[in-house]
Amino acid sequence: MTHAKTNPPESLTPIAITMGDPAGVGPELCLKLLTEPRVRNVCVPIIFGDARLLRKVAERLDLAMPAQIFPIDTPDLDLRKLREPAILDFQQAGLATIEPGKIQKACGEAAFAYIDRAITAAMHGQVSAVVTAPINKEAIHLAGYDYPGHTEIFIEKTESQQSCMMLTSGHITAALVTTHIGINEVPGLISTERVLQTIELAAEAMHQLRGRRPKLIVCGLNPHAGEHGLFGRNEEEEIIIPAIGQAREKGIDVEGPLPPDTAFLPERLTKTDAHICMYHDQGLIPLKMLAFDTAVNVTLGLPIVRTSPDHGTAMDIAWQGIAMVESMVHAVLTAARLAGIQEKDLQEQLGWADTK
Amino acid sequence: MTHAKTNPPESLTPIAITMGDPAGVGPELCLKLLTEPRVRNVCVPIIFGDARLLRKVAERLDLAMPAQIFPIDTPDLDLRKLREPAILDFQQAGLATIEPGKIQKACGEAAFAYIDRAITAAMHGQVSAVVTAPINKEAIHLAGYDYPGHTEIFIEKTESQQSCMMLTSGHITAALVTTHIGINEVPGLISTERVLQTIELAAEAMHQLRGRRPKLIVCGLNPHAGEHGLFGRNEEEEIIIPAIGQAREKGIDVEGPLPPDTAFLPERLTKTDAHICMYHDQGLIPLKMLAFDTAVNVTLGLPIVRTSPDHGTAMDIAWQGIAMVESMVHAVLTAARLAGIQEKDLQEQLGWADTK
Repeated sequence: MTHAKTNPPESLTPIAITMGDPAGVGPELCLKLLTEPRVRNVCVPIIFGDARLLRKVAERLDLAMPAQIFPIDTPDLDLRKLREPAILDFQQAGLATIEPGKIQKACGEAAFAYIDRAITAAMHGQVSAVVTAPINKEAIHLAGYDYPGHTEIFIEKTESQQSCMMLTSGHITAALVTTHIGINEVPGLISTERVLQTIELAAEAMHQLRGRRPKLIVCGLNPHAGEHGLFGRNEEEEIIIPAIGQAREKGIDVEGPLPPDTAFLPERLTKTDAHICMYHDQGLIPLKMLAFDTAVNVTLGLPIVRTSPDHGTAMDIAWQGIAMVESMVHAVLTAARLAGIQEKDLQEQLGWADTK
Repeated sequence: MTHAKTNPPESLTPIAITMGDPAGVGPELCLKLLTEPRVRNVCVPIIFGDARLLRKVAERLDLAMPAQIFPIDTPDLDLRKLREPAILDFQQAGLATIEPGKIQKACGEAAFAYIDRAITAAMHGQVSAVVTAPINKEAIHLAGYDYPGHTEIFIEKTESQQSCMMLTSGHITAALVTTHIGINEVPGLISTERVLQTIELAAEAMHQLRGRRPKLIVCGLNPHAGEHGLFGRNEEEEIIIPAIGQAREKGIDVEGPLPPDTAFLPERLTKTDAHICMYHDQGLIPLKMLAFDTAVNVTLGLPIVRTSPDHGTAMDIAWQGIAMVESMVHAVLTAARLAGIQEKDLQEQLGWADTK
């Protein structure tokens, strides 16, 4: 720690990468991540996973294994002192015989254990953030865990009262007021409190990511943002506009409600840091059109930083060497920024700024 | 008519262009249209409007006036015999003193009269299609007409039982199952009959536009297309899938229901002629992102062809010479194709094919 200027990696922060479902693309993505200079420049990645399985995948795909492997029960292991990429090896029984691309109970058990331990590590300050490779909902259920997805595990384990799903990329960012519910339930779940909370969480996260006060837009719920109450039940006037007013009183730079169909025009996107969207597809249709390969899922409202790539386990291409690591890399970079590691700061800290 | 080969325009079909609200961008767009070679190549445009007002705008903006002006009461006027662009001059009182950019009763009266007469002309075969410049809803109401927009006037005057709003461009086409209603009303208005009808109308129109059997996609209503009934009220299984099945039985090439957030990815758009969308913003968010300046609104299900540009009266820039005519040009070209005028056919008919 006393030689930061001459030995840059010493200053880097540890980030937990959970390996996800062993039978999906997670193992391959983890191995690819470790060789990414962009990842190595901002953190010490620590894979919460299985060394034996990773080695099998590494050999099959001709990928490098990290030099450091620590059994999960290593006494007095301090992740904050690691300087090179490492595997925290859970050594769980049952993984030796799993097959790629199949939904298996042992995979659900393993995937859950990685997440559980990574959350604990983050809560205890052993890692600065958790980046999660994709899990399979059915495998998790087979293992006896009744969670619909990652987010709910994080909410429960961190005892959070609120959370918000935000998808972000260099082109477009969408924070969602409602997420995985039917269209029929959306109007009943929109409230001033919930819209305000989403605005606040998105404003805070974007400030951290952009390093300045962000510009936000709130979309209306209905066509033409209701056209003065003509379409819908006046949700714009009665719910959304009051939330925007309260957010402005708190000093947030936020505009709206805008007609959803013109809120994402190119000239508007360039002037906006994040869109507050009332429902899943209002945000995800434009987001996936513009940033399918690079979008990162961020869970806001937790006491810890958690990001993930915006794709699933892709069971059909597991262990084949063709999974794209770009979204995963962006997930790590975004997590690092949210954890307070700004590349610019990092450059100065490491003495690189002088050479620019 | 006997010299078609040496005098190409003789074969062209007449298309009515209603001038729209006189205080909006309509007059300027009509004048600009008449000088467009792309328009002149496929039809004889006939402005249903006011010659005196058009001359005022033409002088102000240094635009050309057409040579032919026919008072609305010209006896025995046969629009099908016109060979050059013309104005059908309604000579209505009250327009001499109107101001650009203002909502005025005289403008609502005039705008309605143009539409009413153009529909009659189309119903009697005097024109092959009607292209409408934008009107102002409030001006129409001031004039005593209780229509929310163009579409409802067309439905009533043509005594149509069904209609469907489709927006089309070279990049993306969206046919809407529901349009200008609140999100809360959407799930209740989706029915198998309505989805099927939209698929059929879109298939027919796209066949006409593309000159071949089109490929259609149907979007789900809920996130992830309901994820097997997990989100929503099983609308995908109970309503949308049966409609797709019935459409396939009728020989339509249609796929779905797809998760809405991946239905518009670039690689899918290139393989799809039209998307069937369950609600306004599901279709219009991606459409306006990709085709803001060139999208054309088509009213399907009428006994006549009707198109319009996908923008409003733009009162704030009326009579200033800066209105973009591109969407209006595309509206005319789309109307011509829907009326059976294929540029290729036209070329052959006119003897141009030999020189290519």
